[in-house]
Amino acid sequence: MMYYPSQLLERAVDEFAKLPGIGSKTAMRLVLHLLRQDTKAVEAFGQSIIRLRQEVKFCRVCHNISDNETCDICTNPRRDHSTVCVVENIQDVMAIEATQQYRGTYHVLGGVISPMDGIGPSDLQIQTLVERVQTGDIHEVILALSPTMEGDTTNFYLYRKLSESGVKISVIARGVAQNDELQYTDEVTLGRSIVNRTPFNISL
Amino acid sequence: MMYYPSQLLERAVDEFAKLPGIGSKTAMRLVLHLLRQDTKAVEAFGQSIIRLRQEVKFCRVCHNISDNETCDICTNPRRDHSTVCVVENIQDVMAIEATQQYRGTYHVLGGVISPMDGIGPSDLQIQTLVERVQTGDIHEVILALSPTMEGDTTNFYLYRKLSESGVKISVIARGVAQNDELQYTDEVTLGRSIVNRTPFNISL
Repeated sequence: MMYYPSQLLERAVDEFAKLPGIGSKTAMRLVLHLLRQDTKAVEAFGQSIIRLRQEVKFCRVCHNISDNETCDICTNPRRDHSTVCVVENIQDVMAIEATQQYRGTYHVLGGVISPMDGIGPSDLQIQTLVERVQTGDIHEVILALSPTMEGDTTNFYLYRKLSESGVKISVIARGVAQNDELQYTDEVTLGRSIVNRTPFNISL
Repeated sequence: MMYYPSQLLERAVDEFAKLPGIGSKTAMRLVLHLLRQDTKAVEAFGQSIIRLRQEVKFCRVCHNISDNETCDICTNPRRDHSTVCVVENIQDVMAIEATQQYRGTYHVLGGVISPMDGIGPSDLQIQTLVERVQTGDIHEVILALSPTMEGDTTNFYLYRKLSESGVKISVIARGVAQNDELQYTDEVTLGRSIVNRTPFNISL
């Protein structure tokens, strides 16, 4: 059993050690770091966590994280509300926003269909996507899920659910990544990149 | 610039990313983990950090971390208060306590003398150690600092400061560690372990 000189210390270390990827030694190091900081700074840290959990919302339209009932993207009149990009999670929204190449809206599924992990269609925000499309305001759904078997399964499921509505359904391009070395690219990716070749375009 | 769907999220991620060894991607992962936890659990986490910083004390005798003015070890009548083990930091106290081989008290210096880092004797709890020894209640001071140049410098400084009081001054043994392979042990350590050999004792 570990000796702790203070119960307050032990409790804080225990709490940090519950976080994924943080062991008890790292937790101790983080807590001792906080002990050396200004009281105000540590209070701000603690409060930021508590407030986040208490006050953060999920957008009622796209299920992205938000400070309000509807998120900044869904309420932004300069975005293209007829295009919906379907992603797995919040980080994917952030990654696509960082590219500055997309001006439409999103739909955060909350994962992909994965029978091995017990995740079925009803565990994801699929019904709400179908309802968004049924309004008739959506012209294109872009599927931007992981290029994995689970992602492909989910793409196929969504295609079946959405295709009868007549909405245009596209999927993000797969191919070799920028700066990839061809000799180390896997066969499936390289094969697809040849089959799905595009006309040479000097602007790319 | 990174896009954040929520200011609450951004603030929490920023706070986590201030911690040593936590980058913005890890911070994001930790914050999203907390978002999936129970509100009560997240409040407990935040409060444990705030309370630690607000309420934790440092023992007025040995400067170890403590929930009270004087720590558990310094107030424990079953500890040997005539022996003081001098260590650099709180983790060292915890490491020595974990061995269950020491029944004396401690003195936490708060570091070692390191001119390169601008740490001199006055930045450490050296004067309070001298005062503890001057009371005459201490019979032995055990120096348990890092086996580094800075640790050795500090040992030497403490020896000069304390020796005129007549207190017994000892230093923790240096030698090969349990399960070390001799061929990979550095020359200084291996050399010392031969010079400072001890009589064979079957109980060790």
